[in-house]
Amino acid sequence: MRYFFRVEYDGREYAGWQTQPSERSVQSVLQEVFGIVTRQPCVITGGGRTDAGVHARGQAAHLDIEGELDIPGVLRSVNAVLPPDIAVRDLRTVDPGFHARFSATSRRYCYHIITRKMPLWHRRAWAIYRPLDWDTMAAHCESLLGRHDFSCFCAAGHSAKTMTCSVTEASFTHENDLHVFTIKADRFLYKMVRSIVGTLVEIGNGRLRESLAEIIRGRDHARAGMTAPAFGLVLDTIMYDEGKNL
Amino acid sequence: MRYFFRVEYDGREYAGWQTQPSERSVQSVLQEVFGIVTRQPCVITGGGRTDAGVHARGQAAHLDIEGELDIPGVLRSVNAVLPPDIAVRDLRTVDPGFHARFSATSRRYCYHIITRKMPLWHRRAWAIYRPLDWDTMAAHCESLLGRHDFSCFCAAGHSAKTMTCSVTEASFTHENDLHVFTIKADRFLYKMVRSIVGTLVEIGNGRLRESLAEIIRGRDHARAGMTAPAFGLVLDTIMYDEGKNL
Repeated sequence: MRYFFRVEYDGREYAGWQTQPSERSVQSVLQEVFGIVTRQPCVITGGGRTDAGVHARGQAAHLDIEGELDIPGVLRSVNAVLPPDIAVRDLRTVDPGFHARFSATSRRYCYHIITRKMPLWHRRAWAIYRPLDWDTMAAHCESLLGRHDFSCFCAAGHSAKTMTCSVTEASFTHENDLHVFTIKADRFLYKMVRSIVGTLVEIGNGRLRESLAEIIRGRDHARAGMTAPAFGLVLDTIMYDEGKNL
Repeated sequence: MRYFFRVEYDGREYAGWQTQPSERSVQSVLQEVFGIVTRQPCVITGGGRTDAGVHARGQAAHLDIEGELDIPGVLRSVNAVLPPDIAVRDLRTVDPGFHARFSATSRRYCYHIITRKMPLWHRRAWAIYRPLDWDTMAAHCESLLGRHDFSCFCAAGHSAKTMTCSVTEASFTHENDLHVFTIKADRFLYKMVRSIVGTLVEIGNGRLRESLAEIIRGRDHARAGMTAPAFGLVLDTIMYDEGKNL
């Protein structure tokens, strides 16, 4: 049986989602805990591979289990055994053809910026104390919308075959000195959201003179801005088509 | 010169606002840092005395300083020297007759409850996994409004002369599995908000059969529910009259 579930985590103590030799990853902790609770080896496949330090509210995953699970019991046990910084919810069966990564139709990320020292957002948001021109940043956001080659925002070390992504949402919301950038696309390249945020910030503080549209057209990572710190980023959700038993 | 400022803190590492012998309090850390930056002994008076573990977004305080401060410079230095879990803002001069505690006209607190494991709210919210009847709790909230003797919600160890408070706001908001109780009053008794939240929760889970109105009329702390954990509580703001140079 194939099972789907959502995962929520505070990424600060993890070397990212994906299992890596001799590093503590969210995936490896989940595999260990599901293995203990279900008493069988568990291979868990995530919907998105978040980097070290990145958080998630709505990461998605699937795993294959021999036999049927007592869903409420497994959820309770898994959450009790998992450390406080990882939680699982919405455990349910899915079609065997469902794949947490390949069946996903879109992903949404939120990036948090604070423009004054805010202790309740410490290490959850990027603190920037120099003035940013939010109107200009909002205007440049619009260049992200649509289907583009986003090579300029793809960091070295990626394994992507194509650089084309369709962005359907890209905007800032502001609540006093907390600013949230939300972006939704069918797929994201390696460190793409953090590269976009770093570029928008360098446009907003005047350091970058090129427009975001020009940078995208240039397809050159060297023309983009800095990569924003990981801890400000949250994988908000991964969306799937209707009719996929989700 | 008397100066006013706002303080924001993550209370997890502090024995509360107020300076106590051999304990690390927010007030004592602030006094030390303001002392270093202004090079004079600083006595800081807070608007509200939060308990150990309680957070604040809008705590208020005043201090007296010989001579005039370079406000932007002092703010920058104080925030740089303070640990990441305390921040100061809105530093400004006030009338010598202003008092952070006695001039306050009302205070607002928020209490956070989560009803599923939420890693991004770990130790910032009270986790309650058994069902709560939110409609019943909302209905009982209304009994808090108005001017009442709130002895029933005052913990032992208080120094208050009168138990009467005027509550002008008391309600829950819900965002998925995060539930926020907001309460505003002219004053609060010792551990009053946490006692109210604990009582509402025990009404919501069916353990307490008395109505909130009956409990208030009883004036007996033994009839109230448990005291909710400190870490779910945030001092949201302290309000002052117009015309006080604020």
